Amino acid sequence: MTTTLERDGLEIQITPDGPIVMIGEKINPTGHKKLSEALKNRNFDYVRTLAERQLEAGAHVLDVNASIPDVDETRLLPEVVKIVADHVQAPLCIDSNSFDALEAALKVCPGKPLVNSVNGEQNKLQRVLPLVRDRGAAVIGLTMDDSGIPTTAEKRLEIAELILNRAVKIGIPPEDVVIDPLVLTVGADQQAAVTTLATIRLVREKLGVNINLGASNVSFGLPDRQTINQAFLALSFSAGATCVITDPGKLAGTILASDLLFGRDPYGKRFLAHVRRTLKAK
Amino acid sequence: MTTTLERDGLEIQITPDGPIVMIGEKINPTGHKKLSEALKNRNFDYVRTLAERQLEAGAHVLDVNASIPDVDETRLLPEVVKIVADHVQAPLCIDSNSFDALEAALKVCPGKPLVNSVNGEQNKLQRVLPLVRDRGAAVIGLTMDDSGIPTTAEKRLEIAELILNRAVKIGIPPEDVVIDPLVLTVGADQQAAVTTLATIRLVREKLGVNINLGASNVSFGLPDRQTINQAFLALSFSAGATCVITDPGKLAGTILASDLLFGRDPYGKRFLAHVRRTLKAK
Repeated sequence: MTTTLERDGLEIQITPDGPIVMIGEKINPTGHKKLSEALKNRNFDYVRTLAERQLEAGAHVLDVNASIPDVDETRLLPEVVKIVADHVQAPLCIDSNSFDALEAALKVCPGKPLVNSVNGEQNKLQRVLPLVRDRGAAVIGLTMDDSGIPTTAEKRLEIAELILNRAVKIGIPPEDVVIDPLVLTVGADQQAAVTTLATIRLVREKLGVNINLGASNVSFGLPDRQTINQAFLALSFSAGATCVITDPGKLAGTILASDLLFGRDPYGKRFLAHVRRTLKAK
Repeated sequence: MTTTLERDGLEIQITPDGPIVMIGEKINPTGHKKLSEALKNRNFDYVRTLAERQLEAGAHVLDVNASIPDVDETRLLPEVVKIVADHVQAPLCIDSNSFDALEAALKVCPGKPLVNSVNGEQNKLQRVLPLVRDRGAAVIGLTMDDSGIPTTAEKRLEIAELILNRAVKIGIPPEDVVIDPLVLTVGADQQAAVTTLATIRLVREKLGVNINLGASNVSFGLPDRQTINQAFLALSFSAGATCVITDPGKLAGTILASDLLFGRDPYGKRFLAHVRRTLKAK
């Protein structure tokens, strides 16, 4: 199944045949004081810089989140979406927990974006899926529901199935649902990565949809996170992940190396271009 | 199946349940001028240093190779094996293309070593396997034969099967045969890693034996080899590799991160100890 995002004629396809699609995660003020301050002060140059840098580092899609405590997200998110969209040509991934902010941002977002995210909570299913359908967007479905994040792959598959069925029922094409099996830190639960990898395999096998991963949670609270994240990314691609929300400045090398090793990078052109770019930047 | 190596009561088990066994590759003068000169001058202190360093960096087993052009390997290899065995307590992996050198080294090597290597060539099968059996050693079987290295996983499996059958027929227990599916550089052949990963899966599924990998060939001739090697190691563990000949100073982090992610490192003890050691060494 192929999920196609689009922006002014530029199509980005998420597909099991690869290459792995990188969604740049840096335009997100959560835990990012500098960006948070810049957004509060309506200094959007820093947002433009983050957008440019991530595309240069290899991102195909940019996640845009504007959630800051005590700031009106319904006004801010569409504004940031417009700033980014006016500055660079890439499909966007609109990231919010607020229905109103999502709705407002989707109105101003050009092309066919990805919505981040719905999950198995009844409230989310009822309110987010119609927004996605009416806008003709694609959507990330997180495998959690009103009871939290299940500890088994089978239960996570059930939630993925529920989200997919509900989406299809209201008229969203199945290929526009991308499942995110969620990963918690192995610092707290030894089986955290095992469960996520098993969920990826199950969802790929049973539902055939694309799989997104926010991979860096896996190493939260641990030292040398880069090495753990690199290993986890490769393991998740091997299990069937097709798309990843990440910092391309840190992990593009591993993602492009994986594509190269999967035989999806003829003559290593993309990997070699990345290495040249990295050397130049140093 | 579990392959057990032994040295003075210290057992190292290679098993699909992990942890991944690291065989340190650094005691090998091929392309290593400093070691080559040291060995020629019978300056064995450097060999002792390499042995120590690799064990500190996480190696479980040490590969010992003493092949230098115009030097009598049949005399040198057993000498180096004794030097290493007298200095550190770890099972050894005796690495030579010379039957006489292997035979002489196996005589002086303590414990139960690994022999590196036999392959599907008739001459090798006839001469190396009896040495392995008579010494009660384990052996690495490379999936190549008199016609070279096959380009398909199915043909490599056939060679693995041939080696295993011949070993068992003369009285070597099947668990003492570790198959190395070989990897060539993706710089020359886009499908090189894909074929190796497919071979790992096939051999694990059909023969159930342990799989060793000399992983760093995969990036030969390419820049940023470390990133490619890291990704390839994780992919190969995901496919079923259980043992790897590598430079633990460079790749122990990725190997230990993989064990952590596979849920084989309770409380991350081994990974955290590795990070502390690395920080101290800096």
